[in-house]
Amino acid sequence: MQQLLAVDWGTSSLRGALLDGQGRVLKERSFARGILTVAPGDFATVFEACFAHWMGSAGTFCLISGMAGSKQGWLEAPYCACPAGFDEVASHLAWVKAGRIAIVPGLSCEREGIPDVMRGEETQVLGALQLLGLQDGLLVLPGTHSKWVTVRGGKIARFSTFMTGEFYALLRQHSLLARSMPEADGEVDWAAFDEGVALSLRGAGLLQTAFSVRTLSLFGRITAARLPSYLSGLVIGEEIRTQDFPAGAQVALIGAEALTERYGRALGQRGTSVQRVGAEASWRGLWALAQTIHPSWDT
Amino acid sequence: MQQLLAVDWGTSSLRGALLDGQGRVLKERSFARGILTVAPGDFATVFEACFAHWMGSAGTFCLISGMAGSKQGWLEAPYCACPAGFDEVASHLAWVKAGRIAIVPGLSCEREGIPDVMRGEETQVLGALQLLGLQDGLLVLPGTHSKWVTVRGGKIARFSTFMTGEFYALLRQHSLLARSMPEADGEVDWAAFDEGVALSLRGAGLLQTAFSVRTLSLFGRITAARLPSYLSGLVIGEEIRTQDFPAGAQVALIGAEALTERYGRALGQRGTSVQRVGAEASWRGLWALAQTIHPSWDT
Repeated sequence: MQQLLAVDWGTSSLRGALLDGQGRVLKERSFARGILTVAPGDFATVFEACFAHWMGSAGTFCLISGMAGSKQGWLEAPYCACPAGFDEVASHLAWVKAGRIAIVPGLSCEREGIPDVMRGEETQVLGALQLLGLQDGLLVLPGTHSKWVTVRGGKIARFSTFMTGEFYALLRQHSLLARSMPEADGEVDWAAFDEGVALSLRGAGLLQTAFSVRTLSLFGRITAARLPSYLSGLVIGEEIRTQDFPAGAQVALIGAEALTERYGRALGQRGTSVQRVGAEASWRGLWALAQTIHPSWDT
Repeated sequence: MQQLLAVDWGTSSLRGALLDGQGRVLKERSFARGILTVAPGDFATVFEACFAHWMGSAGTFCLISGMAGSKQGWLEAPYCACPAGFDEVASHLAWVKAGRIAIVPGLSCEREGIPDVMRGEETQVLGALQLLGLQDGLLVLPGTHSKWVTVRGGKIARFSTFMTGEFYALLRQHSLLARSMPEADGEVDWAAFDEGVALSLRGAGLLQTAFSVRTLSLFGRITAARLPSYLSGLVIGEEIRTQDFPAGAQVALIGAEALTERYGRALGQRGTSVQRVGAEASWRGLWALAQTIHPSWDT
């Protein structure tokens, strides 16, 4: 196996890493060229501008995960149904350029007639499984749309999406509650965050608990500066309250430290211990997938 | 008792009604002069401009409910603590003009260290109790911030606020889900509304169920035109799911028909029957309060 150009092409950003045959990151770059900034038909041009120098070597293979495989992306890679592991994902690639550039499909699953989808997170999960040496477990990817992923025997069995990050942003920026809060979030106030988590964990639901941002402020029981942290605790606590897993379970958190730190702390209030994996999960997942499909691209 | 000018002065609108000694509505008017449109110090001027001709008669008393009694209003009428009925509310009026113009206080209550508040709804509840001949019950006022009110022995014992209408507006207008929906809501699609309610009633919480707006649309299982009704069912169903009352309970719904119809239908899925009271609840509540304080204003 020669070099792999691993690319995570999401809605708002484009990141790439050059990996050697052992999966070590040689170089890394990121660009503000998420798919929302790319006109239909311009994906090849943007890709060339960002990565042509890394693709120059005849032995470099490129594997792309994320929204680049959506209908609005470079080339649609239709959702692959769960349960899905390395083999299922690797056999559903969308080939931009035969043997050279491929896009990883997202996954879909269904529960009680309601479908759910992910794009990009499947690659992070597969990478985290390798990094943590896991075949089974519960993995959580916090974010605008958080994913809770159940893995059995090395395959993603099912998952659920929670719009937690987006609810936070909506309440923070556009709701009546925004008027009580300062413009910028500032440093996290962990005590306020913990109070928000605690109220949600014993609470009756976010429609009700969110109003406490207004009333605590109205009665002068919390300062404006602490409210963003408190609200963050409320929404993350609500996401955790509605999960159905044993109190002593172990959870793997995947993502940027700023978020996994909050989730680790909130899960701690439920007696749940966590392992954390960072952005390297994407690179490892893409590299492991490239290994799986090795015969079709090694030259 | 002579004439009563009953005024409901809220955040976004100003409504008034002239009632005779028997509580009959003689005239009614409304103005787009909610307190958000009135500069501090201008309340008397706006009031004069709208109602001077009705106040002309020496025997006319004016009682105002709603946000006019908030810090940002005409004159602050501090919250009156629950339990509170006619007597408690009537003894906490804020007098704009002795014996002539008074503002009804809002109510506060507290649960597990978290305060809750209402302004205006207490008057609607007191009016509805008279109209329905109730001394005990569960009354629901749907809206931007819905109120669930428990009444015992003719007094408001406690209540809870749910930001349901505001969550709907945030998701409808500012979220990712808005991109799947048409600009205007159109007619209610009752089948789609019922599906949303049903999913929420059996669901794990709105953070998760809301994402079904996106996925059902993505897989072409629901048309864009039906999505606003479906989302409305989701948020109202979520509000109802998180209530703690017996399945066979009876609930009184207070408010505009467009909303009480939806809530009645959603509660029906839980086996709950409803009575409905419209905008007349405010006028009846103000008139009944005026009766209570009669000695101090009748001339």
